[in-house]
Amino acid sequence: MADPCKAREVLAIVGDKWALLVVRMLKDGPRRFTELKRSVEGISQRMLTVTLRDLERDGIVTRRVRNVMPPHVEYELTPMGRTLREATAPLLEWSIAHLPLIDAARAAYDDR
Amino acid sequence: MADPCKAREVLAIVGDKWALLVVRMLKDGPRRFTELKRSVEGISQRMLTVTLRDLERDGIVTRRVRNVMPPHVEYELTPMGRTLREATAPLLEWSIAHLPLIDAARAAYDDR
Repeated sequence: MADPCKAREVLAIVGDKWALLVVRMLKDGPRRFTELKRSVEGISQRMLTVTLRDLERDGIVTRRVRNVMPPHVEYELTPMGRTLREATAPLLEWSIAHLPLIDAARAAYDDR
Repeated sequence: MADPCKAREVLAIVGDKWALLVVRMLKDGPRRFTELKRSVEGISQRMLTVTLRDLERDGIVTRRVRNVMPPHVEYELTPMGRTLREATAPLLEWSIAHLPLIDAARAAYDDR
């Protein structure tokens, strides 16, 4: 690894479970804050705000104020954000595919 | 997503930056606790202990006490852990490849 210390810093953002889920929810185009809040189950208003601000700061998401009626804020993946989405897809697919095996492993571990 | 709530629970483990780095360090075979402590820069004793226990509980890592001199504990990826390693590789590579762009985005954000 070229610079493991820096890579760790990036992973702290992009390896975050909420960031992974938010990036996934933006894969089909721009979404409003309220749409994201609804689709990322379990995320708090505060956590979504912080996650989106970190992703914006990192150049992964753009935030745009839409001056239509009613005015609202839209979030969208940048071109770099779209490459991140591609890089995270295998991990998300893995997580879903291995849920039953992980559940079984946890039950076995907790029983011993 | 089949069960986003469960997937989030799995991501809380495997999407953790320390878990990603520990899994990466085990890719070439078993490692001792002290070797992992040394190679995962910045991780505390406590955080490594917790990360390894979570990964063991999830069936991703096995822990083995080696009764040789000096006695020590070894950690190794399970077959499922090796598939996780493959699924996380694109995200790690992305993080390293995009460090300069992310740094630039952060500097621009903080300047505005």
